[in-house]
Amino acid sequence: MSKREFAKKAGDNLALLREKKPLIHNITNYVVMNWTANILLAIGVSPVMAHAHEEVEEMTSFAGALVLNIGTLTPYWVDSMVIAGKKANALKVPVILDPVGSGATKLRTDSARRILDEVQVTVVRGNASEILSLAQKGSHTKGVDSIHRIEEAAEAASSLASDLKTVLAITGAVDLITNGDQVLRVSNGHELMGCVTGTGCAATAIMGAFLAVESDAVKAAASALAYFGLAGEKAAVKAEGPGSFQPALLDALYNINAEYLRKGAKIF
Amino acid sequence: MSKREFAKKAGDNLALLREKKPLIHNITNYVVMNWTANILLAIGVSPVMAHAHEEVEEMTSFAGALVLNIGTLTPYWVDSMVIAGKKANALKVPVILDPVGSGATKLRTDSARRILDEVQVTVVRGNASEILSLAQKGSHTKGVDSIHRIEEAAEAASSLASDLKTVLAITGAVDLITNGDQVLRVSNGHELMGCVTGTGCAATAIMGAFLAVESDAVKAAASALAYFGLAGEKAAVKAEGPGSFQPALLDALYNINAEYLRKGAKIF
Amino acid sequence: MSKREFAKKAGDNLALLREKKPLIHNITNYVVMNWTANILLAIGVSPVMAHAHEEVEEMTSFAGALVLNIGTLTPYWVDSMVIAGKKANALKVPVILDPVGSGATKLRTDSARRILDEVQVTVVRGNASEILSLAQKGSHTKGVDSIHRIEEAAEAASSLASDLKTVLAITGAVDLITNGDQVLRVSNGHELMGCVTGTGCAATAIMGAFLAVESDAVKAAASALAYFGLAGEKAAVKAEGPGSFQPALLDALYNINAEYLRKGAKIF
Repeated sequence: MSKREFAKKAGDNLALLREKKPLIHNITNYVVMNWTANILLAIGVSPVMAHAHEEVEEMTSFAGALVLNIGTLTPYWVDSMVIAGKKANALKVPVILDPVGSGATKLRTDSARRILDEVQVTVVRGNASEILSLAQKGSHTKGVDSIHRIEEAAEAASSLASDLKTVLAITGAVDLITNGDQVLRVSNGHELMGCVTGTGCAATAIMGAFLAVESDAVKAAASALAYFGLAGEKAAVKAEGPGSFQPALLDALYNINAEYLRKGAKIF
Repeated sequence: MSKREFAKKAGDNLALLREKKPLIHNITNYVVMNWTANILLAIGVSPVMAHAHEEVEEMTSFAGALVLNIGTLTPYWVDSMVIAGKKANALKVPVILDPVGSGATKLRTDSARRILDEVQVTVVRGNASEILSLAQKGSHTKGVDSIHRIEEAAEAASSLASDLKTVLAITGAVDLITNGDQVLRVSNGHELMGCVTGTGCAATAIMGAFLAVESDAVKAAASALAYFGLAGEKAAVKAEGPGSFQPALLDALYNINAEYLRKGAKIF
Repeated sequence: MSKREFAKKAGDNLALLREKKPLIHNITNYVVMNWTANILLAIGVSPVMAHAHEEVEEMTSFAGALVLNIGTLTPYWVDSMVIAGKKANALKVPVILDPVGSGATKLRTDSARRILDEVQVTVVRGNASEILSLAQKGSHTKGVDSIHRIEEAAEAASSLASDLKTVLAITGAVDLITNGDQVLRVSNGHELMGCVTGTGCAATAIMGAFLAVESDAVKAAASALAYFGLAGEKAAVKAEGPGSFQPALLDALYNINAEYLRKGAKIF
């Protein structure tokens, strides 16, 4: 597909998402729960947060996608994610994982790998160091250094995606999405997004929403990241700092329509 | 009372609330804790969030009202609500329950009913399907379908309020409040309120604050919903989407005075 | 040092903080987690929230400062704080404690005192009644009443700081900071800060960030409070209430530079 066709597809997906209004089940961290719920409402879908072992399977059974996020994790919460993830797999509900802080502490790295072992995850979204930390020892995946050299990043990510049998979305100045074969890049976004907590987590949740309506996970991820990045660009015009940027970002997500996204998406 | 008299009462209650500045004890969900605290500060009262079994009774003993909300519940949190609720009953502190998601999962429905069984709840606020889920099996309460037909909603809600021996506040485009005998409606509000997470929870917390100063629970609930809805109307004038609507809503709650509420409240 | 020299020092500390961008490890309450993370990002440092017993020591080992806050506490969380605090002590990472609600319930008072007993806390920040509640029975520290009489506040606080072997920062209309010997006051700030939840918690977190770059804890605390108060003054100019004040406060923290702080800091 051409850049133009990817952009058209992103717009189509946004329109579909607003028509279907899927329920998105989030098991996520304390820091971003409110923000994530507001992000999902702004884009036009229905968020629910539920983590009790007694109800996660039931809640997942109603969902169009399951969003797992290991920030502020404890073992109880990781168990919740695995229980819900297995149910999602059984029901063919797409699962997206945000391995927040994987690589920073043993608990986070182990928990992210455990979820990937026990649950078939459709997409993993993280920054370069989080994603690289997911590589098993002895794998042929290249190290963190190489992924920061842009010419080798795509190769390393593709190799890791094949090893993990999932789609990887590595977000940064230019986002990189790969399933091992195909590689897409998204260049929408604004640097103020790095000055607000939970923009990565928000990107993950939005990707979850797009997975609920687009079965091609690479296209779903790229559509979501282009939309979110474009909203960041639009919000930055009005913002006087990271404080005013936040409401402006929610407004932009709410006000961007399919046509605007088709014109502004930079997927290649 | 006439529409005008209810509106005057709403304004009087707001003035009283700002004079007395009651402490409102919230045992609520992770998604809306920050938002709820800011809502309560904006209206002029003192919020506190405390859920540890070791301190909930002591905290409730200082409170003008106790707000219980089962979003993001676990059994530990439901126990906290029951412990605090019993203490509130012993001390004649009014209790308001928000049965978030009751009817969606067994844990939520069971937990809401358990709280209603073990605690004398002054008011329950929810949407139509949450409220209807509270009906015990074999009750004569009509089903969810009927409550969505506006001409039968009042009858079904009155019957359920009598069964549950509490006041029910069913919020929607037009809010309906009943204690089984009396029925009031409130038609303030704006559709953007549905695009922000926790506006229902905020309505519940504000009703808790009004219960702390107005002993007639039906009037307290109606006053609170008229005030909150009027703030939503005022905020919507400035908002460019759900992002800018949030700070505008807090500003509106803060800036609306008793006189403005007396003129704008639509209670009938 | 003169008022001018303290103000210059505050600016220098802000410049240093933005150059070093320390990681600040927060074990804090549910209400303010998102807000605290956004406050720390706005000032230019890196926040992390982590409370699992399995990872708090590892996370603290990367940190420039450890921020402990007992709002929405349970015994598990207090244990997290003690575990992390001991690790911080071993590694000479400064620790700041916010004893939210100490004095209000036995759990809070006991938990604050336990942390002070088991961890060498560099600075404690609270309001007057929270700080006074930390005094051990039988101490010579004067009671709550006296600290509200401004002429005796400094004496009482100095005595308590000496007893507790820590720096105390008592925030209010005029902030008072003392290590038992030296007493500083900061008169920056705006009353709208009291209408937003978590401004005290935010002050504590910002003080944590300054402790990461300034080894003199009294100066670090005074620099942080002057900066935060000045941001409040700047934000209030734009705010139409507590809602619009919040994004304006984050914008102000982000936009104030060292030079602006040197001119506006009121430390004496």
